[in-house]
Amino acid sequence: MRPSGRASDQMRDVTIERGIAPQAEGSCLVSFGRTRVLCTASVETSLPPWRRGQGLGWVTAEYGMLPRATGSRTRREATAGKQSGRTQEIQRLIGRSLRAVIDMAALGENQVILDCDVLEADGGTRTASITGAFVALSEAIFWMKERSLLKGDPIRDHVAAVSCGVYRGTPVLDLDYLEDSEAETDANFVLTGSGKFVEIQGTAEAEPFSSEELAELIGLAQKGISELVALQRAVLGAA
Amino acid sequence: MRPSGRASDQMRDVTIERGIAPQAEGSCLVSFGRTRVLCTASVETSLPPWRRGQGLGWVTAEYGMLPRATGSRTRREATAGKQSGRTQEIQRLIGRSLRAVIDMAALGENQVILDCDVLEADGGTRTASITGAFVALSEAIFWMKERSLLKGDPIRDHVAAVSCGVYRGTPVLDLDYLEDSEAETDANFVLTGSGKFVEIQGTAEAEPFSSEELAELIGLAQKGISELVALQRAVLGAA
Amino acid sequence: MRPSGRASDQMRDVTIERGIAPQAEGSCLVSFGRTRVLCTASVETSLPPWRRGQGLGWVTAEYGMLPRATGSRTRREATAGKQSGRTQEIQRLIGRSLRAVIDMAALGENQVILDCDVLEADGGTRTASITGAFVALSEAIFWMKERSLLKGDPIRDHVAAVSCGVYRGTPVLDLDYLEDSEAETDANFVLTGSGKFVEIQGTAEAEPFSSEELAELIGLAQKGISELVALQRAVLGAA
Amino acid sequence: MRPSGRASDQMRDVTIERGIAPQAEGSCLVSFGRTRVLCTASVETSLPPWRRGQGLGWVTAEYGMLPRATGSRTRREATAGKQSGRTQEIQRLIGRSLRAVIDMAALGENQVILDCDVLEADGGTRTASITGAFVALSEAIFWMKERSLLKGDPIRDHVAAVSCGVYRGTPVLDLDYLEDSEAETDANFVLTGSGKFVEIQGTAEAEPFSSEELAELIGLAQKGISELVALQRAVLGAA
Amino acid sequence: MRPSGRASDQMRDVTIERGIAPQAEGSCLVSFGRTRVLCTASVETSLPPWRRGQGLGWVTAEYGMLPRATGSRTRREATAGKQSGRTQEIQRLIGRSLRAVIDMAALGENQVILDCDVLEADGGTRTASITGAFVALSEAIFWMKERSLLKGDPIRDHVAAVSCGVYRGTPVLDLDYLEDSEAETDANFVLTGSGKFVEIQGTAEAEPFSSEELAELIGLAQKGISELVALQRAVLGAA
Amino acid sequence: MRPSGRASDQMRDVTIERGIAPQAEGSCLVSFGRTRVLCTASVETSLPPWRRGQGLGWVTAEYGMLPRATGSRTRREATAGKQSGRTQEIQRLIGRSLRAVIDMAALGENQVILDCDVLEADGGTRTASITGAFVALSEAIFWMKERSLLKGDPIRDHVAAVSCGVYRGTPVLDLDYLEDSEAETDANFVLTGSGKFVEIQGTAEAEPFSSEELAELIGLAQKGISELVALQRAVLGAA
Repeated sequence: MRPSGRASDQMRDVTIERGIAPQAEGSCLVSFGRTRVLCTASVETSLPPWRRGQGLGWVTAEYGMLPRATGSRTRREATAGKQSGRTQEIQRLIGRSLRAVIDMAALGENQVILDCDVLEADGGTRTASITGAFVALSEAIFWMKERSLLKGDPIRDHVAAVSCGVYRGTPVLDLDYLEDSEAETDANFVLTGSGKFVEIQGTAEAEPFSSEELAELIGLAQKGISELVALQRAVLGAA
Repeated sequence: MRPSGRASDQMRDVTIERGIAPQAEGSCLVSFGRTRVLCTASVETSLPPWRRGQGLGWVTAEYGMLPRATGSRTRREATAGKQSGRTQEIQRLIGRSLRAVIDMAALGENQVILDCDVLEADGGTRTASITGAFVALSEAIFWMKERSLLKGDPIRDHVAAVSCGVYRGTPVLDLDYLEDSEAETDANFVLTGSGKFVEIQGTAEAEPFSSEELAELIGLAQKGISELVALQRAVLGAA
Repeated sequence: MRPSGRASDQMRDVTIERGIAPQAEGSCLVSFGRTRVLCTASVETSLPPWRRGQGLGWVTAEYGMLPRATGSRTRREATAGKQSGRTQEIQRLIGRSLRAVIDMAALGENQVILDCDVLEADGGTRTASITGAFVALSEAIFWMKERSLLKGDPIRDHVAAVSCGVYRGTPVLDLDYLEDSEAETDANFVLTGSGKFVEIQGTAEAEPFSSEELAELIGLAQKGISELVALQRAVLGAA
Repeated sequence: MRPSGRASDQMRDVTIERGIAPQAEGSCLVSFGRTRVLCTASVETSLPPWRRGQGLGWVTAEYGMLPRATGSRTRREATAGKQSGRTQEIQRLIGRSLRAVIDMAALGENQVILDCDVLEADGGTRTASITGAFVALSEAIFWMKERSLLKGDPIRDHVAAVSCGVYRGTPVLDLDYLEDSEAETDANFVLTGSGKFVEIQGTAEAEPFSSEELAELIGLAQKGISELVALQRAVLGAA
Repeated sequence: MRPSGRASDQMRDVTIERGIAPQAEGSCLVSFGRTRVLCTASVETSLPPWRRGQGLGWVTAEYGMLPRATGSRTRREATAGKQSGRTQEIQRLIGRSLRAVIDMAALGENQVILDCDVLEADGGTRTASITGAFVALSEAIFWMKERSLLKGDPIRDHVAAVSCGVYRGTPVLDLDYLEDSEAETDANFVLTGSGKFVEIQGTAEAEPFSSEELAELIGLAQKGISELVALQRAVLGAA
Repeated sequence: MRPSGRASDQMRDVTIERGIAPQAEGSCLVSFGRTRVLCTASVETSLPPWRRGQGLGWVTAEYGMLPRATGSRTRREATAGKQSGRTQEIQRLIGRSLRAVIDMAALGENQVILDCDVLEADGGTRTASITGAFVALSEAIFWMKERSLLKGDPIRDHVAAVSCGVYRGTPVLDLDYLEDSEAETDANFVLTGSGKFVEIQGTAEAEPFSSEELAELIGLAQKGISELVALQRAVLGAA
């Protein structure tokens, strides 16, 4: 039995609210249950120096968490003077995931920076960030298209992410914080709209896991991500 | 004529939504027009080392801005590796303002940390932060009272803040971003519920100002802050 | 009764010794009683990148304190690896104050950097810094004029600063350290030679202050600053 | 055809030279082809503060690369003033991998720090580091056993790691630098001696990958790691 | 011919003004010609953690330079966020030099921190710092003796320093900036009052130097330092 | 009697193994007894900005130590976030020493960066670094000559270094760690192949030293360095 009463293959309620940050070129507020992440997309016409002059664009991401997104206060990274290893690991993952579905030549020599800021954390902040960041990025690309900043259609596919884990011996989908802190195994999956893998990260927190468990987690992730992609489609189509 | 069509002594619409961050001991979302700040209060039973063993509590504040709270993206301070001078100046001001109305002995040897994170910036983020932080702090003090963590009633008075400025030759109340970026003079006032001054910061951005203009700005601030305090009272009474 | 025996509207002895740093384009040693600040002005023909190509100059300031300017040793900021929030707040204030009286077009595309280093601290270091920095800046502008680096006369007015406060219930002028550490209210005023306000910063350290007290502090500041400006005139005229 | 002429399921020559750092409690030089990593284990009787008083030990890792381990010089992280995100990600992975096979109660309240410093980099530095770090850790545990510092036998299983990837359409084992920089997919696997998964990290560098490709990569990793574990056993048995 | 017209074995005018920083336990302003360094000594009753509980004191030093001590402005180290390698090298040298003549047991478990801040730089700032720091340290030790903080007499000998160099082929004593920037060889010597060597640092800036030149430099240093020690004695005796 | 049984004027066994880092333009592993340093030379066709456009090259060095090169683990500087003062002092010394024997015009507008990384530390790491760095630099210069990157022959002379010290009252050559930690005086000498002095750094660790002791240390250094230069010649000739 999961603490939330969910079935083992059941996602939390997921919502995506578009246009939440009116000054950004793209934005949404994505919620996976109580986890809430504000995603914004900023279009810049300048590229990082190493990327210039190749006729290609760039997509990158930064991740942050408000100090009181968590049960006890987390020290502000700006005060600590640096981003933690965990933060850097997550923002690199978000950036890689988005780049996997973007045609950089079609983007032209423009950069889109995604900012994913966690307002409330209850597990799965990185997977919610990726899922929401794709929507904010799509909005920003619509914005660029309207201004003829593109060389083609940069969106090759959708991308979304979900976590799965082995909780008290049972593989389950979309861990919340209570499950996550107790899970034997925790895995994050990033898949495209067409069901291909962009990223798979599985970690045995307590006990190493078997090939069979891995196969079950993969199946759960495929189910969850197909639901997330359907929601992204509905939300973006309704624009 | 102000860009927003407001009268010279008219505040923007101000709202304060309590309890917005369910994991924090106190919180609110305060809006001064389009400016929106998420304020949380975190109660900690440990004090900074230099404050220990005196039978007194401590109240402090940190301030941040999401990268895309602004019209063009602002660099994340956690990436830059330090808080800007402006950020430090603002968070010191918020902390001082709150401490002016708190009885530190009544607080006991506890610390309350206020985090003010700007979700959307349209001028007046520091005054909105102070006004909202007082509400979040009050909620946290209720929370402490219920758990018998206090030595008395620490709240000696309300505190709220507003900006005023000379815009195109006319003193006006509660500058928005358009006005602020053009104002000849910009002043921030922090007053108590009983109308006394906690802080006054006036800066001539373009032209030095006269004693007469200063007197007018003071009058506007007194009017605006009495409205803010009335709203704080309504919101806290309605809890 | 003030610890120094001064009348409530009496400044400490103020002296300004010009040309103290022979390698700098402008310099002075300013003393407000025992507080001594070495101010130097450095002329640079390069501007910060964001300021270039507009036909305008720039004036900025940095502030520091020798470790043993104080009664007990203060940690060196170069060792700590960063400037404190207080330091940044002060150096931003000095820069703003000077810019308020400088015609940036007349300065041409040149930069003047003011360094204010406190040799001995006995209260009022920021107001002494502003008062002295104006003299060092004026020397540097004479130096530039002799070398035909200017587009006109950049000095539109004098600027000077003084602190006032409510000490044991009485508003007094030019707080020394003993008074400052006990004052209920501490306010810094920056005024021009023509008596207009450039900056006003008042803080209730212990008790919020009333409109009447504020008016008295303003009057004291006007008196003190007119004396400081007279001294600046005498010193600069005597060059 | 692989650049090295290897079969698709063929590892590079792997060697592990024990006792290379005579001052360390455990050490080895591990080579995966031209990739060479110096692994040392340092036993400390003090724990990080958050770990104290629980009767449990700790194992952690740091990773570095000599500036000229690479084809062109890489900036020294000590000069840059911080570890890159990549470095932090790798050292967190090494630490997690080792902790998965260590019984922390049996370790007693001791800490073992593994330092993995890359002398020469030709792809696979993180997998070589994990494979070698296990040997250095084992040596350090022998050292502790001889000095009766243990509460039991902390080594629950072996752990080793290998990378696999899809190179020009074919899944291959143990990528060298030439393959790695061109691979469509790059995956790192950490498995125990008993064939269970500790960590799986797969990233689509160019094209998202299918379930079938993932299954093939898993099979290759199982083959490679069983060879690495056999080598670890031979080397540790021969001590 | 030296630019200053001095004989090859002639020091610049050297003065030491005691008690310049009234809030410090010891202080002086030392001048070697135009080079001026403010030296203060701060007595602290706490030791660095690694030094505690051994019945021994500690003497350490920090060095800084005002931004406009030099012909063109030098960036402030507090702004740069760290001390330069040169600064660290100098302050380590000052500390070592002083410790060589202090009996740490006689000092008791106290620490004296010497701050050497260069007001004006014209070559030889490190040697002036050492020479002046000894006087400030002596003052601080008198102060401690009066308060019975000592276990004995900690001053075992005087210590002073001077630079020598090969300038246009001729060994000369006490280089000023013009000479220093052109010298083929630059050497700093730290000697005790009894003529023994504490530190010798010779560097060939342009041409390697011979044993004969080294011998000549040593002779010049012995002459110069005996004059400096005589001045220290006069100044300290006159207290 | 020295702990190692060596005669007072006897070096440890010194070996230099060339070509140890195949990806670098020059490299060697130098051993002074148990002290082992990996030296690499990297040729870069870009110069530091301040050096450009003068027709001159540049040679610089960086120094590091693996955490477990020492008897107890030393904190990694990349983790600490900065290089220690000691590290900076050493790498500045290495760079100066090499530049003393290089003709910068002959080098053309190229830069050679020497990295000296200590694998095992047993005293004398800086002197071993200089001695080995010269060999790595020579290799890199051969590499440049083959590619016609030079304007002439940049190597004007050999350079090598050794430490000497007064150990239990006797001047001895080439201190190992046991001797170094106990020596009354520790001196490092850098000499050219023709026997001239590039650098001399002598420090009295315990007791100031006399002119006579200094003369003896100089004699020992001359003997040791002539042996080191002979070895460099043999190793470079054998290429």
